[in-house]
Amino acid sequence: MTRWLEDSEQQVWRSFLTVQSRLTAHLGRQLQATCALSLADFEVLVALSDVPTGRRRAFELGRLLEWEKSRLSHHLTRMERRGLVTREGCGTDRRGAYVVLTPEGRAAIEAAAPGHVEEVRRIVFDVLAPEQVAALGQICGRLLERLDAEPACVGERLEADAACPQEEAEADSAT
Amino acid sequence: MTRWLEDSEQQVWRSFLTVQSRLTAHLGRQLQATCALSLADFEVLVALSDVPTGRRRAFELGRLLEWEKSRLSHHLTRMERRGLVTREGCGTDRRGAYVVLTPEGRAAIEAAAPGHVEEVRRIVFDVLAPEQVAALGQICGRLLERLDAEPACVGERLEADAACPQEEAEADSAT
Repeated sequence: MTRWLEDSEQQVWRSFLTVQSRLTAHLGRQLQATCALSLADFEVLVALSDVPTGRRRAFELGRLLEWEKSRLSHHLTRMERRGLVTREGCGTDRRGAYVVLTPEGRAAIEAAAPGHVEEVRRIVFDVLAPEQVAALGQICGRLLERLDAEPACVGERLEADAACPQEEAEADSAT
Repeated sequence: MTRWLEDSEQQVWRSFLTVQSRLTAHLGRQLQATCALSLADFEVLVALSDVPTGRRRAFELGRLLEWEKSRLSHHLTRMERRGLVTREGCGTDRRGAYVVLTPEGRAAIEAAAPGHVEEVRRIVFDVLAPEQVAALGQICGRLLERLDAEPACVGERLEADAACPQEEAEADSAT
């Protein structure tokens, strides 16, 4: 009963996955070599610098980045040690805590962004025709609509509405 | 002098990145829930089961998956503990060692593949029009050509030509 992919679909899927991993690896190497930041550091710094206050709740950040709790927590600890972010408490719940961009973090993202954007332009937008860019936007839009309709996302949205999900986090850690 | 992205390009780029992380998270959750495999496990098992012998050199696997050496090594250790793969030596060089699919690993990928493919079809191919699938294939093809032309890949190709890169691995570990 499995609806296997046609050969042509299989080829598109493989090349989509390869583009993802190659692009991620390429942009990551470029950031590391020029700014001593990982792509993960960069994503966190962008997510924080996108809001005027430079601060977001940890669980909101995790949802934005689509990272698992433990990955986010470990990564924030490493970034905190390097002085790029700090955490401001919300009782004992680390997910309800605020993650705050430090002046060092802001300087790091401001220094890294121009080179990163230039690289994205050089490797992606300079090689695609305008109609390909438009098509890619439409394709991604369709896929995101589909993913939004998945039940797995409902819990995440409810969680985002909670001001300080203390009970929920405690329930999680008890499992 | 930075060639910043136009608003429309910025929007396409953000939605491309979001699709990547959302799809990865979604497919990972589905695999974990149904087969107790992570997406990373799945990728390793696919790469090994793709060759008739079920074995590849570790450095070749790392190049295929575009993973850093340390990530690959840690991940293989965890998979080895779970009996999904074994490693067969090449002197003291773990990267030259063969990674071998075990019968358990083969059973795991055979059990996981149908549900995973069904999910990829449901979330990706069922929602895109045939011309969007074709466009996505062409877009990925252009991006891969561009990435292939990057000097960073030359070292990887040379490395892949080496039979058992003992000296190179030793030189690496000395840095």
